[in-house]
Amino acid sequence: MELLNLVSNNIKPLNKNVMAKACERMDSLIKPVGSLGKLEEISVKIAGMTGKVKNNINKKCVVVMAADNGICEEGVSTSPQIITAMQSVNMTKGLTGISVLARYASSDLKVVDIGIKEDYVCKDIINRKIRRGTWNFSKGPSMTREEAIRAIETGIQIVKDLVLEGYDIFGTGEMGIGNTSSSSAIVMSFTGCSVNEAVGKGAGLTEEAYENKKRVIKRAIEINNPDKNDPIDVLAKVGGLDIAGIAGCYLAAASHGIPILIDGFISAAAAMVAWKINPLVKDYMIASHCSAEPGFNLIMKSMGLFPVLKLDMRLGEGTGCVLMFNVVEAALSIMNEMATFDEVSMANDHLVDIR
Amino acid sequence: MELLNLVSNNIKPLNKNVMAKACERMDSLIKPVGSLGKLEEISVKIAGMTGKVKNNINKKCVVVMAADNGICEEGVSTSPQIITAMQSVNMTKGLTGISVLARYASSDLKVVDIGIKEDYVCKDIINRKIRRGTWNFSKGPSMTREEAIRAIETGIQIVKDLVLEGYDIFGTGEMGIGNTSSSSAIVMSFTGCSVNEAVGKGAGLTEEAYENKKRVIKRAIEINNPDKNDPIDVLAKVGGLDIAGIAGCYLAAASHGIPILIDGFISAAAAMVAWKINPLVKDYMIASHCSAEPGFNLIMKSMGLFPVLKLDMRLGEGTGCVLMFNVVEAALSIMNEMATFDEVSMANDHLVDIR
Repeated sequence: MELLNLVSNNIKPLNKNVMAKACERMDSLIKPVGSLGKLEEISVKIAGMTGKVKNNINKKCVVVMAADNGICEEGVSTSPQIITAMQSVNMTKGLTGISVLARYASSDLKVVDIGIKEDYVCKDIINRKIRRGTWNFSKGPSMTREEAIRAIETGIQIVKDLVLEGYDIFGTGEMGIGNTSSSSAIVMSFTGCSVNEAVGKGAGLTEEAYENKKRVIKRAIEINNPDKNDPIDVLAKVGGLDIAGIAGCYLAAASHGIPILIDGFISAAAAMVAWKINPLVKDYMIASHCSAEPGFNLIMKSMGLFPVLKLDMRLGEGTGCVLMFNVVEAALSIMNEMATFDEVSMANDHLVDIR
Repeated sequence: MELLNLVSNNIKPLNKNVMAKACERMDSLIKPVGSLGKLEEISVKIAGMTGKVKNNINKKCVVVMAADNGICEEGVSTSPQIITAMQSVNMTKGLTGISVLARYASSDLKVVDIGIKEDYVCKDIINRKIRRGTWNFSKGPSMTREEAIRAIETGIQIVKDLVLEGYDIFGTGEMGIGNTSSSSAIVMSFTGCSVNEAVGKGAGLTEEAYENKKRVIKRAIEINNPDKNDPIDVLAKVGGLDIAGIAGCYLAAASHGIPILIDGFISAAAAMVAWKINPLVKDYMIASHCSAEPGFNLIMKSMGLFPVLKLDMRLGEGTGCVLMFNVVEAALSIMNEMATFDEVSMANDHLVDIR
């Protein structure tokens, strides 16, 4: 808990003075004020994070937290649990969706075993296993409070180490069969919304399996009765090790003044946990794509975040984040490279000021 | 009209056999079927255009058509007409929004004078001036029917030449003060929608100026009475030279089996004109971002197209297209580089088939 408190207490509000200067520069560029919409907002927000008006991304990383979920016993997922281990291995081999998209975006990819159940052979997975998957949270808590804290601190340490290696933007991804169930339970715990609002069909459930998933999650909430005012309690009772790890990533990135991107539903549930631990962390988050899971929009609405990519993707793995890296870099290039009205007047004596 | 007919008649439907093969490959990749949403659709659509399952983008170009609009006399825009010439020059100097974003996306940028009114000195603008701006279409037609055809054929020739230079994807942009008025009038002519549905505030009109803009466009439609079944008539009576040029770009790209991206409202209005000339052209178009102009959504809905970027941008210039280039490339990388279930089973003997 010491590392978690230390890091959380270290998160500073965005630098409003620098943001004001960034806005001023943005409004002085040769375009109608506000006409680049979200690109403008993103570059101003990052200025507030770093304390500099102009920023560059030098080294990108998507961190994938992989862990298993005991809730799978209840038949909430179409895929067998072994997929968690297999796809984690495939990620490091460059074969999966996130591997391909990270390569396209010139982003590094780190796969962290924070709780994979099955055995595998793969030296490229970072082994930080807390436990071989969570317990079945429809029968009791997912994990102990101590394990939840350790999982958050694992995410913190991973990002702290990567910051030392020079990474200056992060994406968050996950691999864990059954993790949409935990994410739905987290949203329900924090917002009090109904099971219909929070539960979706994951990677593709039948109608019958979907009804079962809703029943299981509803029962899990009743049995565990998580305290919505205690985010660690919610996480330990109905969360997952991957979600806890990602929550730690957000906190660490924010404490270092570094932007970190939200991917889909699971990554957003982790963002909500981190935000409940310390609301300031939100200022360092950038939403990427709009997940097809219904609970995702509830989180975005609660947190006041707006994903800009509408790609109907529901793969997870961090795929939305790496696509969004390009949008963030484009936003920064506008701030850094577009001419101001004054510069244009000076540079082209045959042109008058166009304001 | 000969070139226009020749090119239009040369547009082939998408290759359904190759698309079926592309779908089959996409569904064999190690992910839940359909879980990469629009990325899957885009790569399959491009397979249908080129006749190859795997495709690469080697050379990208955004073509900006610049022209003035006589309708500006009516006070429909906040900006003076000289901006068209000035920003066109600034584009070639690397100073504007599209210049910066095209550079970020490693895309070339070609600025075409198809009807700029004012004088300028700039050897980097491609001079294909049809006329020094259109007439004021609230008092009569924007241009003659012959000029409209010549402007379309100018766009055709520009893209045909660029294809010979090896470009294999195009973005469409424009620069023309007052061109949202023409775009609104085109949407109204084709769809019969009301002025409230088709007219927006452009780059930032006051409420009073907005009411005036609506009055002017409504009157223009009444005076010109364009024939919705004759797209050249609509274009000549209430369109613009930039819109005509862009319409030609779409037709030429389609005739060469090359994808071409729609930008914002003006570019979408041009897409609608091209689509009314030959419905097959739509299959070669890819929508990029969602414009803030209300008429834009009407066009997308009519044509059955779905923009995936929600960035609240309203700059035009082709800025949405160049951001979308990255998404398209990412989509192609999925098709080209992700592993299939069979490949994974063979490559990793400790892993079983995960279907």
